[in-house]
Amino acid sequence: MTTEETGSGLLHRYIDQCSNWGRWGEDDQLGALNLVGPDQVRHAASLVKAGRTIPLSLPYDRNGPQPGGFRNNPQLFVTATGSDHVSGAQDPLPGGFGPAKGFGFSDDVLVMPTQSGTQWDSLSHIFWEGRMWNGRSAGQVTSDGAHANGIENYTGRIVMRGVLVDLPVLEEVPSLPPGWAIKPGDVEDFLRAHDLTVHPGDALLVRTGFMAARRGAWGDYAGGPAPGLSLHMAPWLREHDIAAVVTDTWGVEVRPNEIDHFQPLHIVSLVHGGIAFGEMFDLDALAADCAEDGVYEFMFVASPLPLTGASGAPVSGVAIK
Amino acid sequence: MTTEETGSGLLHRYIDQCSNWGRWGEDDQLGALNLVGPDQVRHAASLVKAGRTIPLSLPYDRNGPQPGGFRNNPQLFVTATGSDHVSGAQDPLPGGFGPAKGFGFSDDVLVMPTQSGTQWDSLSHIFWEGRMWNGRSAGQVTSDGAHANGIENYTGRIVMRGVLVDLPVLEEVPSLPPGWAIKPGDVEDFLRAHDLTVHPGDALLVRTGFMAARRGAWGDYAGGPAPGLSLHMAPWLREHDIAAVVTDTWGVEVRPNEIDHFQPLHIVSLVHGGIAFGEMFDLDALAADCAEDGVYEFMFVASPLPLTGASGAPVSGVAIK
Amino acid sequence: MTTEETGSGLLHRYIDQCSNWGRWGEDDQLGALNLVGPDQVRHAASLVKAGRTIPLSLPYDRNGPQPGGFRNNPQLFVTATGSDHVSGAQDPLPGGFGPAKGFGFSDDVLVMPTQSGTQWDSLSHIFWEGRMWNGRSAGQVTSDGAHANGIENYTGRIVMRGVLVDLPVLEEVPSLPPGWAIKPGDVEDFLRAHDLTVHPGDALLVRTGFMAARRGAWGDYAGGPAPGLSLHMAPWLREHDIAAVVTDTWGVEVRPNEIDHFQPLHIVSLVHGGIAFGEMFDLDALAADCAEDGVYEFMFVASPLPLTGASGAPVSGVAIK
Amino acid sequence: MTTEETGSGLLHRYIDQCSNWGRWGEDDQLGALNLVGPDQVRHAASLVKAGRTIPLSLPYDRNGPQPGGFRNNPQLFVTATGSDHVSGAQDPLPGGFGPAKGFGFSDDVLVMPTQSGTQWDSLSHIFWEGRMWNGRSAGQVTSDGAHANGIENYTGRIVMRGVLVDLPVLEEVPSLPPGWAIKPGDVEDFLRAHDLTVHPGDALLVRTGFMAARRGAWGDYAGGPAPGLSLHMAPWLREHDIAAVVTDTWGVEVRPNEIDHFQPLHIVSLVHGGIAFGEMFDLDALAADCAEDGVYEFMFVASPLPLTGASGAPVSGVAIK
Repeated sequence: MTTEETGSGLLHRYIDQCSNWGRWGEDDQLGALNLVGPDQVRHAASLVKAGRTIPLSLPYDRNGPQPGGFRNNPQLFVTATGSDHVSGAQDPLPGGFGPAKGFGFSDDVLVMPTQSGTQWDSLSHIFWEGRMWNGRSAGQVTSDGAHANGIENYTGRIVMRGVLVDLPVLEEVPSLPPGWAIKPGDVEDFLRAHDLTVHPGDALLVRTGFMAARRGAWGDYAGGPAPGLSLHMAPWLREHDIAAVVTDTWGVEVRPNEIDHFQPLHIVSLVHGGIAFGEMFDLDALAADCAEDGVYEFMFVASPLPLTGASGAPVSGVAIK
Repeated sequence: MTTEETGSGLLHRYIDQCSNWGRWGEDDQLGALNLVGPDQVRHAASLVKAGRTIPLSLPYDRNGPQPGGFRNNPQLFVTATGSDHVSGAQDPLPGGFGPAKGFGFSDDVLVMPTQSGTQWDSLSHIFWEGRMWNGRSAGQVTSDGAHANGIENYTGRIVMRGVLVDLPVLEEVPSLPPGWAIKPGDVEDFLRAHDLTVHPGDALLVRTGFMAARRGAWGDYAGGPAPGLSLHMAPWLREHDIAAVVTDTWGVEVRPNEIDHFQPLHIVSLVHGGIAFGEMFDLDALAADCAEDGVYEFMFVASPLPLTGASGAPVSGVAIK
Repeated sequence: MTTEETGSGLLHRYIDQCSNWGRWGEDDQLGALNLVGPDQVRHAASLVKAGRTIPLSLPYDRNGPQPGGFRNNPQLFVTATGSDHVSGAQDPLPGGFGPAKGFGFSDDVLVMPTQSGTQWDSLSHIFWEGRMWNGRSAGQVTSDGAHANGIENYTGRIVMRGVLVDLPVLEEVPSLPPGWAIKPGDVEDFLRAHDLTVHPGDALLVRTGFMAARRGAWGDYAGGPAPGLSLHMAPWLREHDIAAVVTDTWGVEVRPNEIDHFQPLHIVSLVHGGIAFGEMFDLDALAADCAEDGVYEFMFVASPLPLTGASGAPVSGVAIK
Repeated sequence: MTTEETGSGLLHRYIDQCSNWGRWGEDDQLGALNLVGPDQVRHAASLVKAGRTIPLSLPYDRNGPQPGGFRNNPQLFVTATGSDHVSGAQDPLPGGFGPAKGFGFSDDVLVMPTQSGTQWDSLSHIFWEGRMWNGRSAGQVTSDGAHANGIENYTGRIVMRGVLVDLPVLEEVPSLPPGWAIKPGDVEDFLRAHDLTVHPGDALLVRTGFMAARRGAWGDYAGGPAPGLSLHMAPWLREHDIAAVVTDTWGVEVRPNEIDHFQPLHIVSLVHGGIAFGEMFDLDALAADCAEDGVYEFMFVASPLPLTGASGAPVSGVAIK
């Protein structure tokens, strides 16, 4: 590898090597999720054997990982309470609904940055030199939201085989430390050890243990140094036609980055590869379950909320075994 | 039926007849979703034959059904745009991430009433005479949210067989009109006509056509008169141990209500029966799909966002066939 | 007036004629409020004779004038209630403050578009061909807010003589109708009739009666056709060195506009003249007071909230007589 | 002072001694601001001699004093930007306003806890044993807001003489330390040293220097230990018929509290005395101005936003000299 290849040169070579722009037509806004078709959905369902469901999303509340500032944690504003009901304040009912006659209700409003907890990045979340997925202009993302590549394109679509790569198990540590770059060899070692093969259209769920290490005492978990995928995973993801990659960290890729570009794996694999990036998924219960039965593949259902034009969306992901 | 039985008397009789309080223990916060176990999950997965996924949620945006006031439509506030990127305003990157070097991003914040679009009611959403599901005090729901029975109890759990009851097909109308009360006989007619049996733990998805009739010109769709389930469905739901009931209307049950109590089916079947209520689901694409292949059963995956202590949550529901 | 002068030609002539760019230095972000100095403040205070204070702001709540959509009405989310206190839910106090011992509190969160009610436009609110007040690039207003000309520049500064021009009194109508363009002659007639002279640095409060006509049944009050200042007021405002102009309408100027440009008076008098525009002020109580004592001048104090980088800000304006 | 008098006994004695319940009628919702009448307003205006205005409010933005959690700092969500305008995304204009023809605009939405920065407490903010100002039930403050005693009662009314008591000058320290309880003697020493007398209806602005000490590195400034008024100020405030008391700290009174009750001065002087409490006012520029000219009295105008039913409101306070 030449010197040039350690920075911009490498980035550009990987972009050329991994780009899927145009692969599914000029109008495509779905990216690598095109790799999931009827066969993949059927295969995913066939993995349901025990009848267990395992949730994969962090609670959305004030105790989340955000340090505040640009992104706060989710807030729930309660606009009608049981306290109101028991103290008689809901009789008569609001809205002209008449006397309460024993009836009461609660109601609330959610305020949350779409990227504040467990979430999918949309293909409009990241830009590279004025462009986003499939060559569209970044200028299509305005104060109104994304006029193309928004997260709503993913809705109803993330139903496929999931494979958990549980690296702390492989490395025999509770958590990979910040700065640890996960390389293709690491992933392959894990797959081999568990007799797994990946298929086109799979979701690769990579657990670093970093969420477990920081849970409840988050510190700079969201936005700071973190273990994660090496930039050198980009060609491997492209060759194996992985449709979605998911981690238990804030940004999928290792931080600090390996080259002098911010989030280069996003540039290569999300902007150009069109791969779905899932961040801050809670993979700990799933890891415990897989360790127990030795089965690291499952039906993965994680359709994001259809937030029109959003850069990402919260999601209630489920692994079904 | 005596006179008394047309009002409070009937309500109290149905409460007695349909209550599941204590059935799954004093500490239960899950309700009728307890009826979904490994067998039900496996059976649901076995229904996946074609490999098709059909989304069931309305877009969450300013064009939603809410008239404003107590509940507004979802809003997305864009906190970083492609316009900023292309006009040079993201260089250097915020957050101390250094020179952009071609990188850009979008970001956004979601503000939405949890009950403003497609959504599950939680078991803390409705009270009856100071109590909620399983006899807990309504006073446990404060300005902080629900300290019990919150929507997070449903997360990771709504994975079961779904059965679509498409009443406009049965009635040969585009949409049931406001005020139309769906009776057990209607549901049974539909099931018989399509050679379907319901099982304990099923989700019953009842399409009225009312969303199709109002889509985009919502008027008083959310909060006004609507077709929906009759109060007399309560014993039927209980006898058949339906775990979840879903409609394409704002409140599941018929409006105006049949007796002089507000939302009596909520009082009987949600507060006392513990049945999961799903509202404003978009069942139109599913109905078209079922009409095409004649198959009205499917794997139903609709795990709500884990909003700690919320009265309900948006959800990205999917039918998988 | 030539044909050209009825459209773009006129607009450009007025821009040339009325521009104050550079008048207070290249770095100025205050605009015509520079005209208010110690003499003007002292003179304003000297107008306080009766010791009466008259509020000039609409309530900020869900009953405001906004129809919803791009701008909703203000919302108050109550995060702690008296209901919680009386039902015992505030004991112990949150935040580790220990046993309540009789103490309770309420708390709330305000969500409001800055332009949804009574408000000052900032000098960063309107752009013309890529520029804003004093020739600065519109590109300085990003998703982060305004890096120049934000509303915080006005904070602490709007203290001056105010003069009420109550046009319905002059015209002997309850309200000027939508589309009525207020011309310099109208203003001068009113001033003459009340023996008033305007001075440099004055705030001109122009009442149309349109708020009174629509109060509580707002319809398209905010955003629709409205009476207001004619574009031909621009030279008059500039010649008299008016510092601030305030109306009881949503946009100061007449709607529909008189030429085929959107809000041309904003372009001339705000962007180029740097005059402070105050919108949706409630001038009805003030008008009643002035009609009673015949005094149409007063101390006007209306410092906006210092919302860093905002396009405008709500304000609690007061006339003191 | 007996032992009993150091805790609840003292609290109850002070309540009896300082209560103004009923003083201005059973229906009063204004409290001690009733002490400000025409004479007080006129006298305030007579203090304007130099024609200088000094702003007294902190910027409302993400750099404010809140640590996050229960109360976040103010956020501004920008819904239309200059970036959009310069990149062509505002042509045509939204809202059906037609071709831009050079016109552009910005817009934004404010989200802020009413108590997050410079703010007035309303008389509905604090409860004592189920009651608030003037004996009203705390139950009148529900999820809908305060049905009585809300902050809107103060709007248009806070115009009076202000007197700055700058204690760091007296004590010859840059800032009083956390836990320092300001006693009547301290205030009187300052007043005497500056030849000042307080009058009924005055606003007393007490500077501790604590904001200056923490500005920009807030730490636990909002919610933690702080200098502030002693509980023993209560009788003094009542005897002198002070209408409003303002500090540069989060809670007016000293923290930790001097007796085993949370915020006892709020209980005595706000709940029972009806005195307006102003918190987190920025008194530093005012202090510098007063040190320069030796004049510690001024016209104080600080009308809060009319947020219907709110527990408090942000305010753009101004001292005019």
